[in-house]
Amino acid sequence: MAHITARINVAEYVFHRLRQLGVCSIYGVPGDFNLVVLDYVRPSGLHWVGCSNELSAGYAADGYARVKGLAALMTTSGVGELSALNAIAGAYAEKVPLVHIVGTPPTYLQDQNAILHHSLGDGNSRLYASIYRSFTCAQANLTLASHAPVLIDETLRQCLLHSRPVYIEIPANMAKVIISASRLEEGIDTSLSLNEGSEVEQTVVKELLKSLYSASRPLIILDGWVSRYGLEQEADDIVRLAGFPVVTTPFGKGTANETYPNFCGVYTGAAGNSDFVRWVKSRDLVIRFAPMNADTNTFGFTALTSEAITIELHKFTINIRGENYLNMNTKSILRKIISELDLSLFAYDGSCIEPRRLNMAGALDSPRPEASITQDIFWRYVSQFFHSDDIILTETGTPYAGGCDFVLPPNAKIINSALWLSIGYTLGASCGAALAQREMVEQGLRNEGRTILFEGDGSFQMTAQVLSDIIRNRLDLIIFLINNDGYTIERYVDSPHPTSPKTCLLYQCL
Amino acid sequence: MAHITARINVAEYVFHRLRQLGVCSIYGVPGDFNLVVLDYVRPSGLHWVGCSNELSAGYAADGYARVKGLAALMTTSGVGELSALNAIAGAYAEKVPLVHIVGTPPTYLQDQNAILHHSLGDGNSRLYASIYRSFTCAQANLTLASHAPVLIDETLRQCLLHSRPVYIEIPANMAKVIISASRLEEGIDTSLSLNEGSEVEQTVVKELLKSLYSASRPLIILDGWVSRYGLEQEADDIVRLAGFPVVTTPFGKGTANETYPNFCGVYTGAAGNSDFVRWVKSRDLVIRFAPMNADTNTFGFTALTSEAITIELHKFTINIRGENYLNMNTKSILRKIISELDLSLFAYDGSCIEPRRLNMAGALDSPRPEASITQDIFWRYVSQFFHSDDIILTETGTPYAGGCDFVLPPNAKIINSALWLSIGYTLGASCGAALAQREMVEQGLRNEGRTILFEGDGSFQMTAQVLSDIIRNRLDLIIFLINNDGYTIERYVDSPHPTSPKTCLLYQCL
Repeated sequence: MAHITARINVAEYVFHRLRQLGVCSIYGVPGDFNLVVLDYVRPSGLHWVGCSNELSAGYAADGYARVKGLAALMTTSGVGELSALNAIAGAYAEKVPLVHIVGTPPTYLQDQNAILHHSLGDGNSRLYASIYRSFTCAQANLTLASHAPVLIDETLRQCLLHSRPVYIEIPANMAKVIISASRLEEGIDTSLSLNEGSEVEQTVVKELLKSLYSASRPLIILDGWVSRYGLEQEADDIVRLAGFPVVTTPFGKGTANETYPNFCGVYTGAAGNSDFVRWVKSRDLVIRFAPMNADTNTFGFTALTSEAITIELHKFTINIRGENYLNMNTKSILRKIISELDLSLFAYDGSCIEPRRLNMAGALDSPRPEASITQDIFWRYVSQFFHSDDIILTETGTPYAGGCDFVLPPNAKIINSALWLSIGYTLGASCGAALAQREMVEQGLRNEGRTILFEGDGSFQMTAQVLSDIIRNRLDLIIFLINNDGYTIERYVDSPHPTSPKTCLLYQCL
Repeated sequence: MAHITARINVAEYVFHRLRQLGVCSIYGVPGDFNLVVLDYVRPSGLHWVGCSNELSAGYAADGYARVKGLAALMTTSGVGELSALNAIAGAYAEKVPLVHIVGTPPTYLQDQNAILHHSLGDGNSRLYASIYRSFTCAQANLTLASHAPVLIDETLRQCLLHSRPVYIEIPANMAKVIISASRLEEGIDTSLSLNEGSEVEQTVVKELLKSLYSASRPLIILDGWVSRYGLEQEADDIVRLAGFPVVTTPFGKGTANETYPNFCGVYTGAAGNSDFVRWVKSRDLVIRFAPMNADTNTFGFTALTSEAITIELHKFTINIRGENYLNMNTKSILRKIISELDLSLFAYDGSCIEPRRLNMAGALDSPRPEASITQDIFWRYVSQFFHSDDIILTETGTPYAGGCDFVLPPNAKIINSALWLSIGYTLGASCGAALAQREMVEQGLRNEGRTILFEGDGSFQMTAQVLSDIIRNRLDLIIFLINNDGYTIERYVDSPHPTSPKTCLLYQCL
């Protein structure tokens, strides 16, 4: 890590903080207003990943963040940041912590309302930050040297706390301005004054324990934000210790250890087996970890469970059968519960469901050379190829739907999109995931694994130039490119016919 | 053209209007919320140009509009429209009339604030329209059948009047709703109640004539919005009849007939020859047609001329030596002046400047096979390749700068960007320009010509998948792909060195 002197410039301060927070690489595209900032990327010890365009750079940063916990993206003002906006909106929607640094025009030109290029020609240089306000959880405009350290730190804190993108503007004339480095001696403080140790917290712990013990027909549903809320270990502990049947949503695929005997597959509501739906509806307790309730993830809201039997665990909110407890540190509450758990008090008898693993595992016939590759078979069959610690990306469309049928080894990670669903995302994201994986293996933070992408041809061409980024950055990736003649899923949404009932059903629920 | 019945559905109404306004093709990408609308594209007699991604589709629509006068783009809500935003922002900045149709979720789901995919998960379906408000001059959300015809017509009217993008939302459940077709019997009325025939208009005409007659050291500067304001013929008439020296800005390149003896090249202010600057500064009258005063087009504002000698002709405003006349129909005023012009009254003696055509024409040495291709020679040399009626696109960066040196035949059209300057734009735009050109030749609206693109390798990879759109749509294009190892212009902006003084100077003025 670069040496900290007592004084440092604005660009170096930002980059130093990013390195402290585990970011080793920064994604982006050069542009007129970020060139001075770019001069400090390498001297600060960061790896610059120049991308073929800003949308791909944004997607790559998103993929990197989903593996490493934080990513950084750099664009120029206007043209650059608007090209990346769809990626940032996706990161905001799906709670991905990402620092978007924008090189903006010099403050003296902004202050004059000068008619600058990369603007609408109206002298307004504040438009883009106002647009980005809807897609970021905090913003800093580094126009004043004295305020810069506090602003940078607070913005990064919000990024980590809320697991969402933030936006940092560095005007071209501010990048080299010297500021105090003293705050860098301490890390970013992400603690919050939550209701820890309070009476209300004790009530919540007691209520949760009571629910766990008394349920005779329980179910745990793991959703996609479990990793974003840092609850992987707690979810796994409870699933393992309580032994309750566990399913994931499509977004949560890969969050459960699928080798556990109590793993029951992906719950797809009305799009799945009707016995499974009936069984879920007859539960007396459903614990939903980090739920994401969009139409797609809940199959037209048919996979939602009744409030009367449901406990929802969000990052800072716990909802017990309709009652909301705010300002909760859910992680610490779950740790308390896990440490207090008395296995002898469980009413649940350990019986699992009949239709479990429907559409999931089960022996497949040996492939015949002349047979077609069909959606029904492909996704289960290809599962034999996966290893522990692989990162597997399934693109929106048929891979997202088909990926629900994967039979995963432990510690395999799925990256998909279930809310934003922007096609072309995963090719960019795979680029970021592969680099984050390589860095973490080198740092001893992850076991060796591969990055594997499943993508259709329609999605592929959206961001096809990412292949050049993959080659230029010597990334090791396995890509299954599925040529089904473009936009298959949209053809089924528009004019469903019975040749692919699975895909069809998944979208008909909408 | 499709037959109009007394009643028609919402989608058909929009498409019928587009056809009436000369749009034959519509660009876009299918998505969940525009599929119903898409079903009516072909039945309405429009050609669907499916693009590899939305940014390219937006760029293509922009290029089509710059040739044909109007274009249409269709995306899906959220992911699709945000991917296209940079293209729409560029069209807004550079005044390109473009109809962006967005297929949005059904009204009943929007009204429930349902958590839908392609949203931020907050139940807010109005966010994107609010974002687009900054980049469009009018919007229609077709939620009510009874209001749809008026809303559509008024939105299209604003698009044509202001030559800027507009935004039309068609909720998925509204596309097929039957509405009255009666308004379709009349065209869109783009007349305005301007000060025509008024006393103030007579004052302006008199002032302009007096200025033309009395100037002894006049200059005409043609800028890039001449075609957007529909003033090509008027500008050409005045340049030809008055015989005043005429230059263009970089944005206006191609707007002047370069074979006229009074054509004096591109005026590049401080980036150009100092004799030229002195000569311009010594004028006693400068008439600026459709000026665009951004830093890039005026070389850090050094190409602006003093208010005391300058007349600016905008679409609805005329500024005479600092005095603004609003609500003017500039086109009709210029037509009056042209018809009244008495050539015997001109004080100007017809003498032209010494440094004229500096950096422009002049004999070039015969090429030597072993010589390097340099910026100094290439752009002038390649001019021999151009024909009348060619459409030539110069990408932001070295082609934009080098293109100023082209020696153009009459009726050659240049498409470039001088304000928005988003790299990758022209590859998409060339796709749209080539199709518009082909359609116009088939319709007898244009003479046969070619579409020729000059682009660097850094820009090319931004939107490289457009090549597949070109092949799929069987477009005839000539592409000069200049491999200068990526982002040459940015390397010069950041660390200028003397090997390419031209490029360097152009950007150092900023």
